[in-house]
Amino acid sequence: MQNDVRAESLKRLSYIEGHLAGIRRMIEADQYCVDVLKQTRAVRRAIEKLEAKLLDGHLGDCVVQGIQGGREAQIIGELSELYRLANR
Amino acid sequence: MQNDVRAESLKRLSYIEGHLAGIRRMIEADQYCVDVLKQTRAVRRAIEKLEAKLLDGHLGDCVVQGIQGGREAQIIGELSELYRLANR
Amino acid sequence: MQNDVRAESLKRLSYIEGHLAGIRRMIEADQYCVDVLKQTRAVRRAIEKLEAKLLDGHLGDCVVQGIQGGREAQIIGELSELYRLANR
Amino acid sequence: MQNDVRAESLKRLSYIEGHLAGIRRMIEADQYCVDVLKQTRAVRRAIEKLEAKLLDGHLGDCVVQGIQGGREAQIIGELSELYRLANR
Repeated sequence: MQNDVRAESLKRLSYIEGHLAGIRRMIEADQYCVDVLKQTRAVRRAIEKLEAKLLDGHLGDCVVQGIQGGREAQIIGELSELYRLANR
Repeated sequence: MQNDVRAESLKRLSYIEGHLAGIRRMIEADQYCVDVLKQTRAVRRAIEKLEAKLLDGHLGDCVVQGIQGGREAQIIGELSELYRLANR
Repeated sequence: MQNDVRAESLKRLSYIEGHLAGIRRMIEADQYCVDVLKQTRAVRRAIEKLEAKLLDGHLGDCVVQGIQGGREAQIIGELSELYRLANR
Repeated sequence: MQNDVRAESLKRLSYIEGHLAGIRRMIEADQYCVDVLKQTRAVRRAIEKLEAKLLDGHLGDCVVQGIQGGREAQIIGELSELYRLANR
């Protein structure tokens, strides 16, 4: 993983952890379910943005090097699986 | 929120927090992006299950009482928004 | 189903059918996969909008009447299932 | 697009078109919204499977050739956009 991708990913992870801590407080304080659900969706979106960052790092680095280095089959199989997981 | 829904939700939240701590260690240890991405997807699925639990609590409790108590417009508007958010 | 929801749904369905016919022509003409994939995603979004329309009709009509008429268990069970399907 | 991917894609498209025609009949016959919604979700899943087929064809063909042919930037940019669209 490139250094800037790792640094940016850890920053996003800290934000997600803080957001989850807030959701814990909401549930413990018995706040309205609908408000809690809006926050859990916001966390899922934040995780999707983290994934987009990680994937862009992967595409620009491992994918290009892997295909140029003759490991097409592995690289393509992984991308196919990631795509399938993204859609589910 | 009913007590059992709150207890179950906090339990699921602890699991999600532990899973995220594991992802942090993976990124810090510079593990393969594809493996990290599989774990972030697993966390998103765990959050979706937490949401299903919270929503079931909401449906069986606030929704029925709200509609029987004459607050249809508010309850229906909230459910419509939640479904739209679920689908993004 | 209320008449206006049915009319609006059939209109959206015609749009989706036309869009799919365009995708068929793109595949038959061997157009670039990436362009075809962008169109299939647009169709999925159009179906999600049709679903939002159908669900709003259901919420404002069957759900309120069902709960006021004492069929909470059935109505709530169906909403829970629809939500789970929306989230996959 | 390889011939087998095109043939398989057109077959899946015919299935989707037939499924949508069935949904049209359900709406025209005023069937229960919840039943219609289950069918629209099934169509969305069928479109996702068509997309997985198209993407696998793209990965194994254009992506490998494009990267080996020096067009990394274009290929990687397209994959990044497709993943983002998949996740919405």
